Amino acid sequence: MSEVLTQIQNVIDSRKGADPESSYVAQLLHKGEDKILKKVIEEAGEVLMASKDGGGEHLVYETADLWFHSMVLLAHHGLHVEEVVSELARRQGLSGLAEKAARQDG
Amino acid sequence: MSEVLTQIQNVIDSRKGADPESSYVAQLLHKGEDKILKKVIEEAGEVLMASKDGGGEHLVYETADLWFHSMVLLAHHGLHVEEVVSELARRQGLSGLAEKAARQDG
Amino acid sequence: MSEVLTQIQNVIDSRKGADPESSYVAQLLHKGEDKILKKVIEEAGEVLMASKDGGGEHLVYETADLWFHSMVLLAHHGLHVEEVVSELARRQGLSGLAEKAARQDG
Amino acid sequence: MSEVLTQIQNVIDSRKGADPESSYVAQLLHKGEDKILKKVIEEAGEVLMASKDGGGEHLVYETADLWFHSMVLLAHHGLHVEEVVSELARRQGLSGLAEKAARQDG
Repeated sequence: MSEVLTQIQNVIDSRKGADPESSYVAQLLHKGEDKILKKVIEEAGEVLMASKDGGGEHLVYETADLWFHSMVLLAHHGLHVEEVVSELARRQGLSGLAEKAARQDG
Repeated sequence: MSEVLTQIQNVIDSRKGADPESSYVAQLLHKGEDKILKKVIEEAGEVLMASKDGGGEHLVYETADLWFHSMVLLAHHGLHVEEVVSELARRQGLSGLAEKAARQDG
Repeated sequence: MSEVLTQIQNVIDSRKGADPESSYVAQLLHKGEDKILKKVIEEAGEVLMASKDGGGEHLVYETADLWFHSMVLLAHHGLHVEEVVSELARRQGLSGLAEKAARQDG
Repeated sequence: MSEVLTQIQNVIDSRKGADPESSYVAQLLHKGEDKILKKVIEEAGEVLMASKDGGGEHLVYETADLWFHSMVLLAHHGLHVEEVVSELARRQGLSGLAEKAARQDG
């Protein structure tokens, strides 16, 4: 599973500076930060709507859209999805400890 | 890297039905869909702000927040992050073919 | 100033059921709730970006866009901007009292 | 109706620099731009949810919240709601002409 996100990020990164006509991502990166942000917030709105419509496959699809455009934004800033996953892992560790402490308090 | 997301999703899932006092996620799941959605859109807004403030570690942090709350929403709907990653993988395949076709056109 | 909002709402209302080709609003109302909501959240994102870019005329413009699409959403639901302004007036009264109380506490 | 928005904006403006403890608006203005933007995007999300939940009074209430926080943002930037209403009026004029032209085309 991990390789998927790393590969997608690498593909996105490879589109930086490519001919805007060559792909959707190349075009979006060419249009710049504001267009990417517009997509991120729009996709977050779609996630809300899909959830209110009952979730299911539609929500999986819209969440994938949101995450994909988040990765385009990371690429714009020279960042990589692995940094996001590392941050999540770091918190999981902290959270694990917090949960442990909470259980000991109980 | 994949294991991280799977593990986080599993931890989130295990909080469903837990005492709301026991953890942040248990509390959020207990409060229900609208509170989770409020967090998702709020975190998407924070991603916008972090980007406009220059990106960097702050953006990594806010993207992790957005993804984490997306996973809480998936848990609310009985969905799993692996479905999102599968959807992204499926598209990558399609996109790869589309790119290939585009190059052959060029 | 009030008449402006009332008139705009009336114009929007008159577009309900009109030929989608006849105007932007007729088209948006024809496309339905999800397309209108997508515009509302997109315009809220633009307000954030305009603020982060320094405010000024750009922010005035994007706020007008956000309010306009809010009124299209009201029209979709058979609601009217005067109800929103009445709600704001009602709160101002409450707030006025709250402020008065706060001053007396001080 | 107009006076309501002008009065609300004036009340909000008068909270700039006031003791953060004295009112909600004074506190929000004191916290600064990012906290106000967080509220704006959160309220836009609430508008989406209220619409998906069927509209009605709940949507009127959330739209009022969104507009109110838009006015707090305007105050932060030294702007006034009358500028937003003027922009809407300007467009209505343009739109009126556009509609007229469209009818003549038809």
